[in-house]
Amino acid sequence: MSSASQFGDQFVSTATPEYIMHVGMGFWASKTLLSAVELGVFSTLADAPADLPTLQKKLALHQRSARDFLDALVALKLLERENGIYSNTADTDLFLDRAKPTYIGGILEMANARLYGFWGSLTEAVRTGELQNESKGGGENIFEALYADPNQLRGFLRAMSGVSAGAAHAIASNFPWRDYKTFMDLGAAQGMVPATLARAHPHLTGIGFDLPPVKPVFEEFIAQRGVEDRVRFQGGNFFEDPLPKVDVIVMGHILHDWDLAQKKMLLGKAFDALSKGGAVVVYDAIIDDNRRENAFGLMMSLNMLIETSGGFDYTGEDCQAWMREVGFSKTWVEPLVGPDSMVIGLK
Amino acid sequence: MSSASQFGDQFVSTATPEYIMHVGMGFWASKTLLSAVELGVFSTLADAPADLPTLQKKLALHQRSARDFLDALVALKLLERENGIYSNTADTDLFLDRAKPTYIGGILEMANARLYGFWGSLTEAVRTGELQNESKGGGENIFEALYADPNQLRGFLRAMSGVSAGAAHAIASNFPWRDYKTFMDLGAAQGMVPATLARAHPHLTGIGFDLPPVKPVFEEFIAQRGVEDRVRFQGGNFFEDPLPKVDVIVMGHILHDWDLAQKKMLLGKAFDALSKGGAVVVYDAIIDDNRRENAFGLMMSLNMLIETSGGFDYTGEDCQAWMREVGFSKTWVEPLVGPDSMVIGLK
Repeated sequence: MSSASQFGDQFVSTATPEYIMHVGMGFWASKTLLSAVELGVFSTLADAPADLPTLQKKLALHQRSARDFLDALVALKLLERENGIYSNTADTDLFLDRAKPTYIGGILEMANARLYGFWGSLTEAVRTGELQNESKGGGENIFEALYADPNQLRGFLRAMSGVSAGAAHAIASNFPWRDYKTFMDLGAAQGMVPATLARAHPHLTGIGFDLPPVKPVFEEFIAQRGVEDRVRFQGGNFFEDPLPKVDVIVMGHILHDWDLAQKKMLLGKAFDALSKGGAVVVYDAIIDDNRRENAFGLMMSLNMLIETSGGFDYTGEDCQAWMREVGFSKTWVEPLVGPDSMVIGLK
Repeated sequence: MSSASQFGDQFVSTATPEYIMHVGMGFWASKTLLSAVELGVFSTLADAPADLPTLQKKLALHQRSARDFLDALVALKLLERENGIYSNTADTDLFLDRAKPTYIGGILEMANARLYGFWGSLTEAVRTGELQNESKGGGENIFEALYADPNQLRGFLRAMSGVSAGAAHAIASNFPWRDYKTFMDLGAAQGMVPATLARAHPHLTGIGFDLPPVKPVFEEFIAQRGVEDRVRFQGGNFFEDPLPKVDVIVMGHILHDWDLAQKKMLLGKAFDALSKGGAVVVYDAIIDDNRRENAFGLMMSLNMLIETSGGFDYTGEDCQAWMREVGFSKTWVEPLVGPDSMVIGLK
């Protein structure tokens, strides 16, 4: 059982109870990073490294807290400090500067603005089985709430790009795209997966399918990536509307949002829409079949408990069984990056 | 830069952006453990290992969430599961079973009930320099609020024992107690330090000094440890009342609660109360002098920002300078356990 460098080197070589305290008090490090993203610490330092008085002024930090806050980020290995000048690490400069296309902070902005607080009700959630987000006590689901507000929607879609970027590159590399010509990304959000696939494989043309309000955000993102000639948006509700016929349907971080009947319905609808020999590519933080390794996937399922009325994450075995049930002939699982894997089903 | 096993083995060998996501989403693992402590998962399993239906019933968990919640704890290495039977790990059985004297969950109970929510306002705290706990907007300090409510007080004092247990044993071992006869623990809480010192060194007699409402909790704890013949309670306010004369004064997790003037005043008052040749032993999550390693200490200082109107954590160099300023002749720093160190000053 290892404990991370997160709480300083004292923790690296010691055994429990340090690990228990490290996990239990882990919300300190988490919220310190989330607040730093909210305050634009990394974007500001990407413009120019700065000393304490300059940063305190630029970020509007109070004198009492500025130094501890920034030095905590140094000790968490998220900033560097040499001769009193703070700067980003190579990683935080690449991944947490809002101005760079490699920015993954959208999910952290959403976690800071929404999930951190909602997870405060985890005990109630595990006792009642009820969601704990904006829709608590009401009938509106999270997507109706998010998609109704253009600013919230843009933030959510950007967050989805942050969590899809690594998987998108892995799917572009690890799937036999040469055998296929057309694809659709179901629940495409900003279009991270369609853009990444189209850029990696010039023979592909694709569709991003999502609710109609997503259109302008999607089209802006696709145009920025220079693939607007081969990727188009199709607005619709994937429960109600017919799906276009394509060779490959990708569903990333979609299936876990829904209950068992809805999951099977979506897989069945994908099967029907695929051309002969086509494939469905489902990816999520797929839980290992023994449900004892992928902690992130299991906690993502708790996040679905917090965020949805019936959603849950699942193992590769679960997903393959559902795929076979709706008609797919051959199925298998392949790891992508971090906690994500993809489950592939051939028609 | 390592990332912990906390998010599954996929994360152990991968580089960033996994580390960024691991820290940023760390509140998931943290809150999962905090809710497990709140729900009594570890105390229940200490009585008897159990299968899913039994645990679901005993812990009053909802069917939707029980399995994911428990399996997440397995993947976080906080529970074990063999053939469907859940049990504590050796460590969680020892440290998170309320019935055992080794229980350290008090601080996690407090973190769950209070700090997790208050840390949600970290951004406001770093912007305004203002505390964010129950006393927000009011004049009452945290100790007045906590000490006014017997249940909150008992919880807080138990929490303090959890964070002092490791340090207490290290201080008992690493300080030349044979040279001294009497000690006082200033801000003694339940009495973890006095009890540990008295049990380890039968020639010592000691005093636990704290606010008067602490008396019954202290005396119960000391009697449970069987050292009531050599350790007594003295009620008082260490800002207003005279301190008894002793050979050694211990101040653990006390000095960081107060502002600079108050810190120096307390050290000066300790100096005056000590016998000739006496010593003060200050311990806290002392920050390394370069303020770049002890992330826990730096975040503890942010916790003082959240919890107090002027408190902050400090380096060993800071503390030694204050000690010399009020008259101590020789000072040095020694590491204890985890992020804690002690600063010693000789009169």
